[in-house]
Amino acid sequence: MASGANRRIETACIFRNPHIPAALLLARELTSALQAQGVAVWECDRLDDPASAARLAGTDLLLTLGGDGSLLHAARAAARHGALLVGINLGRVGFLTEAEPEDWPAVLPRLVCGDYWVEERMMLQMEARRGAEPLANGLALNDVVVGHGTPGSVLRLQVHVDGDLLAGYVADALIVATPTGSTAYALAAGGPIMPPQQRNILLVPVAPHLSLDRAVVLAEGVRVQVVVQGHSPAALALDGQVVAELTAGDQVDVQASAEVARFARVRPRDYFYRTLLARLVPKEREAILSTASVPASQGENRSE
Amino acid sequence: MASGANRRIETACIFRNPHIPAALLLARELTSALQAQGVAVWECDRLDDPASAARLAGTDLLLTLGGDGSLLHAARAAARHGALLVGINLGRVGFLTEAEPEDWPAVLPRLVCGDYWVEERMMLQMEARRGAEPLANGLALNDVVVGHGTPGSVLRLQVHVDGDLLAGYVADALIVATPTGSTAYALAAGGPIMPPQQRNILLVPVAPHLSLDRAVVLAEGVRVQVVVQGHSPAALALDGQVVAELTAGDQVDVQASAEVARFARVRPRDYFYRTLLARLVPKEREAILSTASVPASQGENRSE
Amino acid sequence: MASGANRRIETACIFRNPHIPAALLLARELTSALQAQGVAVWECDRLDDPASAARLAGTDLLLTLGGDGSLLHAARAAARHGALLVGINLGRVGFLTEAEPEDWPAVLPRLVCGDYWVEERMMLQMEARRGAEPLANGLALNDVVVGHGTPGSVLRLQVHVDGDLLAGYVADALIVATPTGSTAYALAAGGPIMPPQQRNILLVPVAPHLSLDRAVVLAEGVRVQVVVQGHSPAALALDGQVVAELTAGDQVDVQASAEVARFARVRPRDYFYRTLLARLVPKEREAILSTASVPASQGENRSE
Amino acid sequence: MASGANRRIETACIFRNPHIPAALLLARELTSALQAQGVAVWECDRLDDPASAARLAGTDLLLTLGGDGSLLHAARAAARHGALLVGINLGRVGFLTEAEPEDWPAVLPRLVCGDYWVEERMMLQMEARRGAEPLANGLALNDVVVGHGTPGSVLRLQVHVDGDLLAGYVADALIVATPTGSTAYALAAGGPIMPPQQRNILLVPVAPHLSLDRAVVLAEGVRVQVVVQGHSPAALALDGQVVAELTAGDQVDVQASAEVARFARVRPRDYFYRTLLARLVPKEREAILSTASVPASQGENRSE
Repeated sequence: MASGANRRIETACIFRNPHIPAALLLARELTSALQAQGVAVWECDRLDDPASAARLAGTDLLLTLGGDGSLLHAARAAARHGALLVGINLGRVGFLTEAEPEDWPAVLPRLVCGDYWVEERMMLQMEARRGAEPLANGLALNDVVVGHGTPGSVLRLQVHVDGDLLAGYVADALIVATPTGSTAYALAAGGPIMPPQQRNILLVPVAPHLSLDRAVVLAEGVRVQVVVQGHSPAALALDGQVVAELTAGDQVDVQASAEVARFARVRPRDYFYRTLLARLVPKEREAILSTASVPASQGENRSE
Repeated sequence: MASGANRRIETACIFRNPHIPAALLLARELTSALQAQGVAVWECDRLDDPASAARLAGTDLLLTLGGDGSLLHAARAAARHGALLVGINLGRVGFLTEAEPEDWPAVLPRLVCGDYWVEERMMLQMEARRGAEPLANGLALNDVVVGHGTPGSVLRLQVHVDGDLLAGYVADALIVATPTGSTAYALAAGGPIMPPQQRNILLVPVAPHLSLDRAVVLAEGVRVQVVVQGHSPAALALDGQVVAELTAGDQVDVQASAEVARFARVRPRDYFYRTLLARLVPKEREAILSTASVPASQGENRSE
Repeated sequence: MASGANRRIETACIFRNPHIPAALLLARELTSALQAQGVAVWECDRLDDPASAARLAGTDLLLTLGGDGSLLHAARAAARHGALLVGINLGRVGFLTEAEPEDWPAVLPRLVCGDYWVEERMMLQMEARRGAEPLANGLALNDVVVGHGTPGSVLRLQVHVDGDLLAGYVADALIVATPTGSTAYALAAGGPIMPPQQRNILLVPVAPHLSLDRAVVLAEGVRVQVVVQGHSPAALALDGQVVAELTAGDQVDVQASAEVARFARVRPRDYFYRTLLARLVPKEREAILSTASVPASQGENRSE
Repeated sequence: MASGANRRIETACIFRNPHIPAALLLARELTSALQAQGVAVWECDRLDDPASAARLAGTDLLLTLGGDGSLLHAARAAARHGALLVGINLGRVGFLTEAEPEDWPAVLPRLVCGDYWVEERMMLQMEARRGAEPLANGLALNDVVVGHGTPGSVLRLQVHVDGDLLAGYVADALIVATPTGSTAYALAAGGPIMPPQQRNILLVPVAPHLSLDRAVVLAEGVRVQVVVQGHSPAALALDGQVVAELTAGDQVDVQASAEVARFARVRPRDYFYRTLLARLVPKEREAILSTASVPASQGENRSE
């Protein structure tokens, strides 16, 4: 996690979620404000085409206007070029985004002049193949998921870690997640929470049927191999985007990537801990649980 | 669940939690207000002595000033006499209480004149014995718990249902709960939620170690027998109050009681469902989850 | 749960799972054995066609050769006619089947002469509609599931119980299960176990994302209404068979059915409890947990 | 994890669990066998006295005859001296022990001549204090637990990570565990599994009541501080042994220790993965889940 004063932003890209009308207007405002501060700006609403990829190479900052999904998309596109990521939240709960739309006037000048810190987050590198034939590959900031196709079917999978059989699963899906992904799909499936700067690989099955039903936390250096068994159709997704259909015998290799997602942050460095309770605990309890001293009546008991 | 217009309240008891100073002042106010409406009132801060028990027999309404713990205590005392229960919440989260302190002026007249509905909740009857010798017995509105004594020890228990072995447990504790108890300790231990008017018996182990780790929901008519094994000391609690120490070979029988807890309610009959989300779901999500129609962006995904 | 001596079997249907080659041979053997005992027999490998449905009306016993899936299919077909169900297990773990293939010579004569007991299991009646237009309806012995289409998408659902909003869910799926279904998909999703003769409706979300994440156990008399929200495609399945695709605004009503599944059983009446531990607990522990008395060393602790 | 050919064993200590009679006889056999191979041997049944501690300094190998509890005790005693640990399992499930009693003739010669590999496992260093006054300190190989005293009470705790508030807990206990401890108490409380050679700190609450209910996995370098709140009595345990009573305001600091537990292993290096399934998955499923190829019938579904 780099820190201190950083380089000034010279070039910025504004990535708008094309499905959110408010993104277009906000992009206009931000472009004007950035240009007024001497920053070269370009706008786009997709990043996975060759032209955008080429332009990203010389871009310092990638501002996303959307939800966490937009930021995941941007992180995969920016990983190889090193552009800093900042998300303005136009979605619902934003675990990854840095600021709400109304906060940009305070945030933007700090970014431009280098008054931010850089949070590096581990990504996963995935390669899927059928026998010797490559099926798909790519990066994920949250997770690589092998999941079933329909509510009626179950998936049979085997997972090897560095060549050793870890477990067979009969389940809806298996999630291979980063620490960043530990608060996304893996959380919904019952997995543990990991601070984002950590470097571990997390395995969480979804609805395991008489299989290993605990999350497994692995060291960052391991190679995880998922093999599809049985005859139910399966799908392979990176950060929630389906990239391939799988069938019996297909293999999916997952490892920590050498690339990282680099977020520019203006919030305090302990923001993850500060916001965790509000996101995960019922509101009636939050005040109680975050108060430094709790005056408790004698005779209090669990049924209180 | 009885309903409609009910009998007028003639005699009321106000039970004050002696550890909450505010209860004394509120009791004065309520006594005055009840007397002004022609109700005979007596106050007390314990209900488990013979004198209180005798007076309860002729009491229509038992008002508790405290948290859910006070109401649990009152429910056990009132079960044999049929007094209606109403809790004014001076504790923290009140699952059982009917009103906040500031609401009593609106609630009291409705109770006095019979404008309430009666919610009957199942209770458990527990009998513990060592060989032929009785150890303890009593009623519980939330739960009967057999638990370990210290963080270092584990409990070994066997559970029989109507004479059949259900399972052995190596665990911190076993909770035998009513539907009312399903939102108390049993909830903390991972059990399912049951609407309060239901009649089932719920078994939930706490920290089961390579044992049956799922809650079991039984029909109201069964007899559950818990047998202590191993040599770790165990404790037996009714609604969170320890009533006996247990040792290897001791047996605890639990059945649905013929007695019920009778709550007078002025809130709508669907109050349980209405308040569940606020209590169990993080605040940032509650608005989303309870809105009738959710405008969702296309391309939304789990990482949103 | 009816009991005692039962009527003799006059007519039997043998339903073969067409995907299991062994079923064909076993059907031959069983047909010969039944005919030798004076039973009229017909064989089939599907039951959802009109001809089979008509013949089922006059059939006393429906023998299935397959796994629990075959028995679920048979139970839905037989529910309206009252034929008794018996499953010979050609699948893997059989929670519903009565006998392994090698056991039929001992089981068959007992069935034919009426030496069995009848276990009635609750079913669910489901009706789905889009506005006023019916989409699908049918019975389920295990569960009604509204699930997402692909690993990348999440489902937004709202659930009402008898007209009251219970909760909104952002999840992979919502399972509405019977007690029979409590040991199937609902178990995989973390739900509680219910003995099969019980009559409750169980709600279990799959991978709920910051939503109500506990199972809810409802009384048998309630009406559960699931409303699809958001724009992700959803699928509706009865006992694991997809019966409709759903979209935003579609409603799925589920209630306990007046029909029941009637299983003829020759195993002891406590078979459910007897087999539960073996199915759900790791083998190294099973012996320990089911032993009547456990000699424990002093100083034993949790890390043993 | 060191490897290859190791130094020959010159001096060994045999630590007998004094509560297991079989340990005494086995100790005699092992002493004779070791002496016959030229190893100097001493026996004891406690290691926490000064005399034993002094002798451990010059001891190469510490053989324990007991369960995992005995090995935990030995690991804490040996940590500062670097003696290698090997456990002969006289307990029940042995996650830490290396061999069953009947296997020692094959294992012992390999140890003596250096044909083993060394598995280093992280330990935790704990310091508890009341204001400025030290209350207790020590090492743990499995876990540091702050737990409640009786089944009726709940604990209120606050946890800080490197000075930042992580969460408040209302719970039965909070477990701070090593990867080794992830398959002990932390597993029972719902935590994830971590391979033993990993270096992370795991936080798992036991029966959290409307609090953060997910395990949290932290980096090895952090300092965890647990502060007791509320008025319920609490106990502090290292590897299941209570070392102090705690009260409101007391603080417990936990960090990864510089000391490690050094196990001499003769089993294959992938033994952890190889034995995991057998320990955690029901026996009827284990064969299915560990088979390389699963022939599955078409139409298989979750209810199979």
